[in-house]
Amino acid sequence: MTSIQSLEFKDGKLYLIDQRKLPEKLSMFECKEYKDVEFAIKDMIVRGAPAIGVAGAYGIVLAAKKFLDLPKEKFLEKIKESAAIVGNARPTAVNLMWAVRRMMNVLEVNRDRANSEIYEILLDEAKNIEKEDLETNKAIARYGNEIVPEGATILTHCNAGALATTGYGTALGVIREAHYMGKNIRVFADETRPRLQGAKLTAWELVQEKIPAKLIPDSVAAVLIRDGKIDVIIVGADRIALNGDTANKIGTFMLSQMAKDFKVPFYIAAPISTIDFDIKSGKEIVIEERAATEVTHINGVRIAPEGIDVYNPAFDVTPNENITGIITEKGIMRPPYLENLSKLKERH
Amino acid sequence: MTSIQSLEFKDGKLYLIDQRKLPEKLSMFECKEYKDVEFAIKDMIVRGAPAIGVAGAYGIVLAAKKFLDLPKEKFLEKIKESAAIVGNARPTAVNLMWAVRRMMNVLEVNRDRANSEIYEILLDEAKNIEKEDLETNKAIARYGNEIVPEGATILTHCNAGALATTGYGTALGVIREAHYMGKNIRVFADETRPRLQGAKLTAWELVQEKIPAKLIPDSVAAVLIRDGKIDVIIVGADRIALNGDTANKIGTFMLSQMAKDFKVPFYIAAPISTIDFDIKSGKEIVIEERAATEVTHINGVRIAPEGIDVYNPAFDVTPNENITGIITEKGIMRPPYLENLSKLKERH
Repeated sequence: MTSIQSLEFKDGKLYLIDQRKLPEKLSMFECKEYKDVEFAIKDMIVRGAPAIGVAGAYGIVLAAKKFLDLPKEKFLEKIKESAAIVGNARPTAVNLMWAVRRMMNVLEVNRDRANSEIYEILLDEAKNIEKEDLETNKAIARYGNEIVPEGATILTHCNAGALATTGYGTALGVIREAHYMGKNIRVFADETRPRLQGAKLTAWELVQEKIPAKLIPDSVAAVLIRDGKIDVIIVGADRIALNGDTANKIGTFMLSQMAKDFKVPFYIAAPISTIDFDIKSGKEIVIEERAATEVTHINGVRIAPEGIDVYNPAFDVTPNENITGIITEKGIMRPPYLENLSKLKERH
Repeated sequence: MTSIQSLEFKDGKLYLIDQRKLPEKLSMFECKEYKDVEFAIKDMIVRGAPAIGVAGAYGIVLAAKKFLDLPKEKFLEKIKESAAIVGNARPTAVNLMWAVRRMMNVLEVNRDRANSEIYEILLDEAKNIEKEDLETNKAIARYGNEIVPEGATILTHCNAGALATTGYGTALGVIREAHYMGKNIRVFADETRPRLQGAKLTAWELVQEKIPAKLIPDSVAAVLIRDGKIDVIIVGADRIALNGDTANKIGTFMLSQMAKDFKVPFYIAAPISTIDFDIKSGKEIVIEERAATEVTHINGVRIAPEGIDVYNPAFDVTPNENITGIITEKGIMRPPYLENLSKLKERH
């Protein structure tokens, strides 16, 4: 049932759906070495926290391949250097750091083996991360199914779909599953300025899947929520603090606040790897500010006058009290989050 | 102090700043006859409720000019026909209907005069409407001054500036005045999807006036309001019901709700001509739905996939309980609005 695969490692190279080119063109971006992966993450060729994590893991594989012929200590050192570069390409995406750390652990455990063996082991680990991500998404979709009523109208923001993961998606995975189950759902998709991931990516996935859907400007959602047109809101996450505070695409907080005011259930759908067990609350999350040109230019055309300043935060933090539940691959987490997410840590 | 004049009637023609071309190019659109005015309103060459009202009045002048040589009864009939066409070019803009009605009253009173006299009288009336609008805006700006603290950071939405009026502006008129008074204000301007009037027009006016300002995607405002970064929100209006419920650009309701939740003063700035004394509440306001291409295309370039549906309401209705005050040319109206706006009707 997974028709969209956002990335593939083949013949020693990583191929990524070039998300900058959608929805006009479906084309692959080829990463021959780790620097290409860093660029792909920074330039949003690949985006979505889980997809970035998997791409980052393959970035380390590509680094190992590049430095294969160096003496052992130099080889290890170069891989670590590359891992740091790849790991820092997107500061808010905790899955990236998580995947890089996992790869580094494997490297550490196997450091005494031959370089070529280490390469194979790293490649296997990246493949595992990829496979697990797909399984994780399918589990999220299954658990999420219980909170989607028959005939529901669902609102989503940004793209937490197959393109944001290795396939299926998190928030959009729940939506897919409900559609596959024949629940007669309908979707409103926020266009998600400034980068328009909703218009370009989510709308594209919804059209591919033939799910009845309407695209809306971000400022339309509030009246739909107020007027009882939305049964449930499901979005993804970039980073979740131990108390449930969630960093996600700018605009998420606004939806959650409206949902609270007008009593609409508001869910986060995300793998456990999105939970940052090291931070207690959203206050510790530093918000990445992105380039002014994302706002002043669209498709390379200037829309705002020369000389205007811009404030362009990539994310916002939704406080835990606005979140009805967090749909993970281990089930739906409910308040009190600090207690319930901490339990996940023990099992994780 | 009014450097920007959005329209001018000269040599029997109406010249409008072509707002579709801003901020790249400042150029004038020439209306030779009333159909050009209808087109200019429909195609948003001229926009903003007060500016549309004045343009509509001149549209009727152009109709009188066109039919000047017809026999009296035919002449009157044709003007009325044209007035209906011009008056319906933008259903939500109550000022347009108000201006058309005012012109039709003058026509009725003077119906027995010679056609050429009627033309001159209509022209004088349109000029009065234009002059009064500028005076009205300056009065709004003066009254509004009292709710802008020294050093305030002000959030505005869409364009309620000189371009939306004959000059100065309503919400942006209040901001201009505070800046001219040396209050060291700063502005956040919502870009205002889908038509980007904030990015294209408000940002342009702010740059012209050298007012310190930052442009933001619409979904950023909520966190600024929550985090105490905004001292006051001022927006314009397209139509105000007798109970204070206000129709304005889509996205306004969301701001007002955040303002209420986080205790930030939220003001409407609008001339009394924006008040529709015939409707008791916002429930009676029909929301205009605009073309899907406003969302799926930007500057003629497709951003969303073929086959996606769109919901694109032009306005939303902010309930009176979210509004701290309505700044008019007769002073700031406060709750209870039904009582206080009704008093305005008696004087109007």
